[in-house]
Amino acid sequence: MASLSEIGVAATINILSALAFLVAFALLRIQPFNDRVYFPKWYLKGLRCSPLHSGAFVSRFVNLDFRAYLRFLNWMPAALQMPELELIDHAGLDSVVYLRIYLTGLKIFVPITIIAFSVMVPVNWTNGTLKHSNLTYTDIDLLSISNIPPASPSTDDRHIVSDELSRNSWMHTTAHKSNAACLVLYICMQSWNSSKNRFWTHLVMAYTFTFWTCYVLKKEYESVSSMRLHFLASERRRPDQFTVLVRNVPPDPDESVSELVEHFFKVNHPDHYLIHQVVYNASKLASLVSEKKKMQNWLDYYQLKYSIHQSIKPYTKTGFLGLWGKKVDAIEYYSSEIERLSKEISIERNEIRDNPNDVMPAAFVSFKTRWGAAVCAQTQQSRNPTLWLTEWAPEPRDVYWDNLAIPYVSLSIRRLIIAVAFFFLTFFFMIPIAFVQSLANIEGIEKAAPFLKPIVEIKAIKSIIQGFLPGIALKIFLIFLPAILMMMSKFEGFVSLSALERRSATRYYVFIFINVFLGSIITGTAFQQLNNFMHQSANDIPRTIGVSIPMKATFFITYIMVDGWAGIAAEVLRLKPLIIYHLKNFFFVKTEKDREEAMEPGSICFNTGEPQIQLYFLLGLVYAVITPILLPFMVVFFGLAYVVYRHQIINVYNQEYESAAAFWPDVHGRIVTALVVSQLLLMGLLSTKHAAQSTPLLFTLPILTVSFHLFCKGRYEPAFVRYPLQEAMMKDTLERVREPNLNLKSYLQNAYIHPVFKARDEDENDAISQVEEECVTVPTKRQSRRNTPAPSLSNASTSPFLPNGSEHAL
Amino acid sequence: MASLSEIGVAATINILSALAFLVAFALLRIQPFNDRVYFPKWYLKGLRCSPLHSGAFVSRFVNLDFRAYLRFLNWMPAALQMPELELIDHAGLDSVVYLRIYLTGLKIFVPITIIAFSVMVPVNWTNGTLKHSNLTYTDIDLLSISNIPPASPSTDDRHIVSDELSRNSWMHTTAHKSNAACLVLYICMQSWNSSKNRFWTHLVMAYTFTFWTCYVLKKEYESVSSMRLHFLASERRRPDQFTVLVRNVPPDPDESVSELVEHFFKVNHPDHYLIHQVVYNASKLASLVSEKKKMQNWLDYYQLKYSIHQSIKPYTKTGFLGLWGKKVDAIEYYSSEIERLSKEISIERNEIRDNPNDVMPAAFVSFKTRWGAAVCAQTQQSRNPTLWLTEWAPEPRDVYWDNLAIPYVSLSIRRLIIAVAFFFLTFFFMIPIAFVQSLANIEGIEKAAPFLKPIVEIKAIKSIIQGFLPGIALKIFLIFLPAILMMMSKFEGFVSLSALERRSATRYYVFIFINVFLGSIITGTAFQQLNNFMHQSANDIPRTIGVSIPMKATFFITYIMVDGWAGIAAEVLRLKPLIIYHLKNFFFVKTEKDREEAMEPGSICFNTGEPQIQLYFLLGLVYAVITPILLPFMVVFFGLAYVVYRHQIINVYNQEYESAAAFWPDVHGRIVTALVVSQLLLMGLLSTKHAAQSTPLLFTLPILTVSFHLFCKGRYEPAFVRYPLQEAMMKDTLERVREPNLNLKSYLQNAYIHPVFKARDEDENDAISQVEEECVTVPTKRQSRRNTPAPSLSNASTSPFLPNGSEHAL
Repeated sequence: MASLSEIGVAATINILSALAFLVAFALLRIQPFNDRVYFPKWYLKGLRCSPLHSGAFVSRFVNLDFRAYLRFLNWMPAALQMPELELIDHAGLDSVVYLRIYLTGLKIFVPITIIAFSVMVPVNWTNGTLKHSNLTYTDIDLLSISNIPPASPSTDDRHIVSDELSRNSWMHTTAHKSNAACLVLYICMQSWNSSKNRFWTHLVMAYTFTFWTCYVLKKEYESVSSMRLHFLASERRRPDQFTVLVRNVPPDPDESVSELVEHFFKVNHPDHYLIHQVVYNASKLASLVSEKKKMQNWLDYYQLKYSIHQSIKPYTKTGFLGLWGKKVDAIEYYSSEIERLSKEISIERNEIRDNPNDVMPAAFVSFKTRWGAAVCAQTQQSRNPTLWLTEWAPEPRDVYWDNLAIPYVSLSIRRLIIAVAFFFLTFFFMIPIAFVQSLANIEGIEKAAPFLKPIVEIKAIKSIIQGFLPGIALKIFLIFLPAILMMMSKFEGFVSLSALERRSATRYYVFIFINVFLGSIITGTAFQQLNNFMHQSANDIPRTIGVSIPMKATFFITYIMVDGWAGIAAEVLRLKPLIIYHLKNFFFVKTEKDREEAMEPGSICFNTGEPQIQLYFLLGLVYAVITPILLPFMVVFFGLAYVVYRHQIINVYNQEYESAAAFWPDVHGRIVTALVVSQLLLMGLLSTKHAAQSTPLLFTLPILTVSFHLFCKGRYEPAFVRYPLQEAMMKDTLERVREPNLNLKSYLQNAYIHPVFKARDEDENDAISQVEEECVTVPTKRQSRRNTPAPSLSNASTSPFLPNGSEHAL
Repeated sequence: MASLSEIGVAATINILSALAFLVAFALLRIQPFNDRVYFPKWYLKGLRCSPLHSGAFVSRFVNLDFRAYLRFLNWMPAALQMPELELIDHAGLDSVVYLRIYLTGLKIFVPITIIAFSVMVPVNWTNGTLKHSNLTYTDIDLLSISNIPPASPSTDDRHIVSDELSRNSWMHTTAHKSNAACLVLYICMQSWNSSKNRFWTHLVMAYTFTFWTCYVLKKEYESVSSMRLHFLASERRRPDQFTVLVRNVPPDPDESVSELVEHFFKVNHPDHYLIHQVVYNASKLASLVSEKKKMQNWLDYYQLKYSIHQSIKPYTKTGFLGLWGKKVDAIEYYSSEIERLSKEISIERNEIRDNPNDVMPAAFVSFKTRWGAAVCAQTQQSRNPTLWLTEWAPEPRDVYWDNLAIPYVSLSIRRLIIAVAFFFLTFFFMIPIAFVQSLANIEGIEKAAPFLKPIVEIKAIKSIIQGFLPGIALKIFLIFLPAILMMMSKFEGFVSLSALERRSATRYYVFIFINVFLGSIITGTAFQQLNNFMHQSANDIPRTIGVSIPMKATFFITYIMVDGWAGIAAEVLRLKPLIIYHLKNFFFVKTEKDREEAMEPGSICFNTGEPQIQLYFLLGLVYAVITPILLPFMVVFFGLAYVVYRHQIINVYNQEYESAAAFWPDVHGRIVTALVVSQLLLMGLLSTKHAAQSTPLLFTLPILTVSFHLFCKGRYEPAFVRYPLQEAMMKDTLERVREPNLNLKSYLQNAYIHPVFKARDEDENDAISQVEEECVTVPTKRQSRRNTPAPSLSNASTSPFLPNGSEHAL
């Protein structure tokens, strides 16, 4: 356990490293040659062109405007300035609501921190349990619940308590101030005086914090659900509003899937059915298309090369990576290959459309009105509830095409398999890693590869290997864990990317909770914990954990600083994409399209990001009553992360899909879980302090919290699952009035076509020319700042937010 | 613990008492003066008239046909003869499916009993653990798992095992027979020989029993759900098919509830909305109507009296019960009272219809088609999911009118309160009872009422009080428990009687499981158990219970015989309704209507009956592997109960509502719960027998069972919750073709009117005259046997089932 000064040192180190990251970011981002790394979002939106095409040669790469360097932290207020509505328009509702998670953290923890510091820290500090005991203790412990004497003081404790009473007269004077916090304090003091038991303070605080958290959660749920409904209502026409995904179409000997679907819906939704699109099994076609794309890229590269050096005709070899094989004229070769592939693709395309075996038993059915789609998505169609399953169609770009045709029984079995696999992954993942670790030691290497012995025996290398190898297997596993969880979700059969990410996030949270949170508190592998818990009574489990919690406060403070402060600052620097982009740009980038692809804007990554935030909520709520000194660190994390992620969402991340904040019920549920866990652990901790009379009062807290959760679930969750008919009818009526001659059929005709079928259209009008054309002909709001970060005050007034070079306008 | 012979004695006593009940029933039921007690169902259906109106005076009361006495058990085959379809028509689907619970019991336990007796009893019997030990044991124990030696035999056990091996050669010869059971046996024997561990038999049996139970459960779920869908599809037009119950209509300052509902549904379901009926707060009107009914009854009585003795003009007193007050002419008095009440009722009726404050924020909305109703019931209507809540309307007679207008927030709070209250009821109900018991002892009585001392001190009375008083508080509590649970469900706010009964049944099952099942195994109150479990590890709980289970087998065998055999036989005798009917008939019955009401046919009472059957399922599944000797007793219970309840449903019980077997998911879920409990307890028991290597195999059983349950839930439960659009559309189309000119509006106009508003129509055409008329003018299939149980062979051929006097026809 570290003392306050040691924490101070750690804080200094982490603040310095965070600052270093931020300074580096501020310097790197205004260099034009890093533009694509730090502002890819604007490139993807077509609002920004490569700065490499114009201007003086040097200023293309290095920012020579020194005034820019002086205001290097200006991106922070800039990131906060874009109003919420514009942000929704710019980056989607998902991103905005994702940011609200950080805001919720601030809303919960800022008042809690203030109350905790004005009430609990004095109460903890003014005790002498640790001072009068023989235990070793640190300053941090003096501020925590450990410093409170047990409730029934033994004879030799009594003089301490009376001692305390006289010393704490200053608290009485503050207690008479007339604000609410002080009233609470006063009540605490009274009860404490009468019972000579300071745990009443903690009890009252636990109630206060619970009520405050629930209040914030309810407000947030309310506003997110109204944002979602407003977003769905106000946004422009989208194909998924009219479309329902039908799965498990039963096989029929007489009719094809397409005919069957048409007949079924014409019969059962006669007034509303419009058209449908069947789902094809297009895996072969997809591989052909991707091959053609690669060839096209090579052709572009050689044509570019040839147009620069007209004298040298480019040659290539037909073998692997152009390294061996017959030498041929590159342009001719790739042109003929593309022609061959185009033919094959069109044959395959026709074959798929004609061959009934390539049609999967699933379809996207579109309706004439939103009302019809809402009705179909929410009702059961057939007698057999495993056939003709309908649900809202995900957005076209959100569809996960591979999982559309899994039959019902197979889905049940997959779910069981994954549940068992996840259990073993969570509790037994240490077994294979320990096995690898036992192999990957010096002796193992020497045994497996005797010729390495002389090298390995060198002292420096030996110590590196010994320090490095045992950890590496675990590190690799933890890096791949999100991918493994994602694969599990894919196997489980979800049909949209958003659902895949949501499920992976839930699993990742469970893993973090068991292996990071519990694993840090009770050292030992998850399996050992499980084994312990199996042999402990239900009473003892919260007690065992609760007792260890105050002792781990310093560990978690350090964790917050390293992972939260420095980690977030590193996120904004984007070191990995920066290096990869420049490496790619230097070695591989052949065409403009390649450069586009080398950008790697990334996305929010809900499946890894959200569970990590949830760990902070958990830590904050657990330690709020026990060791409130942890709270300020938490608040700094939430504040910094909010600013950083707002900046990243505006300038960097590319939105992969729009689920209209469908993840909020999960976020809400996990915060409530954290709240219940914190209450149970406090109960366990207090029961070891002989404060048994407070147990019934503590016991009601989880019951109240769970019933609060159930209330919220009933009140707000339907907004995330169902679509009210009133809304649908309203929008339908409005649209009918506004556009009486709308041809909905042609609008929906090709909305849900597998991306590979769409590829043909893309091929025809080439991506690069399109982008370049746009850059030249379509002047947009942010175009003036596209090529140079020079000041342009005239434009600044028209644009409320300046993504690049905004420091000049301010 | 009782030996086999003691069990034999107990069995003899219980068989004799059961037989005595059955004989008494057989004799009493053919007496005409008991006709209304044993065949009330036929009276209620109007297919049977009072036998008191015709025939010779003596034969009106006593059956003089002595041949009838010879065939006194013939009601049993008769009860089994009515085919299922006719039974559905006669008594509703609910009753038929309720009988299927007993059939399911037979289907599960008959094969299990056969396998258990051919495999497990020999395996258990041929061990010598108990013989070679110093423990006291009985014959029952020799047949149970207690007789199996621990898995790792200690040195002094080894000679026993080898001893066994040579002795059991006869089992090998039987093992080569080629039926499946023997194959299983053979495999068991092999594994047992190789590992010298007979627990493999129990393990294989646990798997076999689980798979068989799941197989039967799946088949039953399948057939019940198809029966339900068929019932809903094939039955004639019913108002609830077209109607949806709308609750939580938001208040509107400008419009009345009725207008609001009409506008909302005209806007949001423009093509389907037909009419609606608002719900009135009619509690005052209901009390007036019931008062008028009482007066009418008195009037009938006095008119009857006067018509017999024309000379004596009947007088009555206006005070309480006609015992004091002013003496007035009875007929005049009651006529004027009725007139006054009629006026008041019509005023009140108009007032309710006019006064907007008496309209509750709920309505029954009817649609033009079943499709429209199905859509509205399954979708969310408004943005705010706590307003405009729609659900299928229950059948008109199933509606629980008092709960229709509870707001959403209040519902959540009520649910929380009841959950907490039920927890305390289950675990702490012994506290007030123990308190009452401590008061109600001899000393307490003498203290409270000293004048009773001389009486109480008499030895005989003293011993009666001492034996009787302590138990009476508990008895009274247990008698009132179902009523208490029903009140809880009513407070919780369910809107239909069927839902009320289902919820009460769930609670009653939990109570029985904790206080009867666990309470018998681990003696002590539920609270003591809870306290124990809180202080035991998750590993130890099944072990503690598992170890005590084999020792309690004889107790439960006796329980099955007393409660199951004799109890069921007493049920068919209907002793209580018999006595009450004759008492009422003698003292109170004034008019024919009174006699009708004195019949008390009763109903199935799902809320108390089903949980008690579930206790038998639990016992059977738990003891199937551990002490298979219990199984035959179970099978006899299920067989007897099936016959008895089939008879009662045909002849006695009155159907209160029809929920179309909506309770089956609950029944299925509870049997699965029993299965999982049995597996966990077996795991606990085996872990004490040092058979730890079998734990992983046993561990997979609950996982498989739970996932089976989840599969069934997904596959079959929707049939009980939702209504497929395909079905609705099919019926709509058929109806449109068959009855193109149907006036649905007039059909639905008054379907959902509060019963008190309907009362007016009933008053006009009097109930008695109606019944009598029907008896005279409408000849029905069963009419010939109405007045005398004399043989009538000519009619017997036309009637497939003979409810009364059927013995003559056979």
